[in-house]
Amino acid sequence: MPNFKVNVEYDGTNYFGWQRQKGQITVQEVIEDKLSTLLGERVYIFGSGRTDSGVHAINQYFHFRTKKTLPLEAYLFGLNSLLPPDIRIKHVEIVPDGFHACFSAKKKSYRYVILNRKTPSAIYRNFCWHVSYPLDLELMNEAASMVVGTLDFSSFRASMCSRKNPVRTVYEAYWVKEGDKLIFMITANGFLHNMVRILVGTMVDVGRGKISIEEFKNILEARDRKKAGRTAPPQGLYLYDVYY
Amino acid sequence: MPNFKVNVEYDGTNYFGWQRQKGQITVQEVIEDKLSTLLGERVYIFGSGRTDSGVHAINQYFHFRTKKTLPLEAYLFGLNSLLPPDIRIKHVEIVPDGFHACFSAKKKSYRYVILNRKTPSAIYRNFCWHVSYPLDLELMNEAASMVVGTLDFSSFRASMCSRKNPVRTVYEAYWVKEGDKLIFMITANGFLHNMVRILVGTMVDVGRGKISIEEFKNILEARDRKKAGRTAPPQGLYLYDVYY
Repeated sequence: MPNFKVNVEYDGTNYFGWQRQKGQITVQEVIEDKLSTLLGERVYIFGSGRTDSGVHAINQYFHFRTKKTLPLEAYLFGLNSLLPPDIRIKHVEIVPDGFHACFSAKKKSYRYVILNRKTPSAIYRNFCWHVSYPLDLELMNEAASMVVGTLDFSSFRASMCSRKNPVRTVYEAYWVKEGDKLIFMITANGFLHNMVRILVGTMVDVGRGKISIEEFKNILEARDRKKAGRTAPPQGLYLYDVYY
Repeated sequence: MPNFKVNVEYDGTNYFGWQRQKGQITVQEVIEDKLSTLLGERVYIFGSGRTDSGVHAINQYFHFRTKKTLPLEAYLFGLNSLLPPDIRIKHVEIVPDGFHACFSAKKKSYRYVILNRKTPSAIYRNFCWHVSYPLDLELMNEAASMVVGTLDFSSFRASMCSRKNPVRTVYEAYWVKEGDKLIFMITANGFLHNMVRILVGTMVDVGRGKISIEEFKNILEARDRKKAGRTAPPQGLYLYDVYY
């Protein structure tokens, strides 16, 4: 059976995250149902990983197998015609049999967008975290540079995170300013549950002067979630890309 | 009675435009109702001009008068606490009695966003026009440069446009590319009904090679709406700013 790799973008606002869950509308469930309709058989898809409720994906990937093959363009246009407009298929290709959207992933990037101005935005309300107090981008970049490397991220994962190994390798992590937006980019070989959002919440505390760079270093070394700052809200987070 | 000038941003997706209309939910109506609630008296607001159904505003302005004055911050936070999150007040100030949000406006800028790639976007679906065919930005900028000046824009206005004088002065008009987005910026002393959207629709026909620069010139000189291209859809259009 051919193995299909699919690139999908979604606006996570109206979904209870990626992963299929009983009693909730999720992105995975909606895609599986529409793909099954398109192919006239029950199909299961495997994502590169979960995203939480309200989190967006610019480039999420999944794979699936089917006997009933259609032309690749038919998957793209057929699926998009069935899917709601807040989920859009961007690319479909056939990949070698061994490809697995989760286990074949080598690196992932996330983007986090803060709107840093006095009043919230009407237009970007579902796509950023509004922070009204001034933030020192230089200090936040200093903190960001400290999480680059192979480190134990126990302080920056949700208490319910089930991963056995809290060590991850972060290849890059930095903040840039675009107008009144502060954008955080992070690339790693993998992420713990809520890792990006706890990092962002804690770096914002650094940027507002609530905790010092020295304290940020201590938090990282403490390997204790209770030491870090709050979890930044989901609507500012985007799964930016997955590298295979 | 003090005269208040208010700067407001809105996501036009769920509104039937700015202007109050019977049987439709409009931005003006929602703001008037909430402002009247805040002040405990019936208040009327006067916008810088209308925006159509689905069109957004990054910076719209209105003015109103009231005897019941509150601290300026109370207008900002009080109104935002009553308004739905797709309408956000950005600034409130007291202006001289002669200020009128429409008649005092000297210039206005609009922005139009095209997403130029094969597949539509889930995240930006309500905030851009998706054009899947390739567009020649250089040709589109050549056409844009031809509408700068004091010209008769009869070819670029809705047939139902009621303005007597079809002559407007365009100060600048140009396209820029940002990633997979093509962004049109135009500043003029005023705009006819649907002027930006018909200009964009016609320039897209230039960009795809459907009409030549020579033909674009002829359309402009024909002063006849029937000669121009289609009206670009509303969700790509943003009232960018009003200059007083």
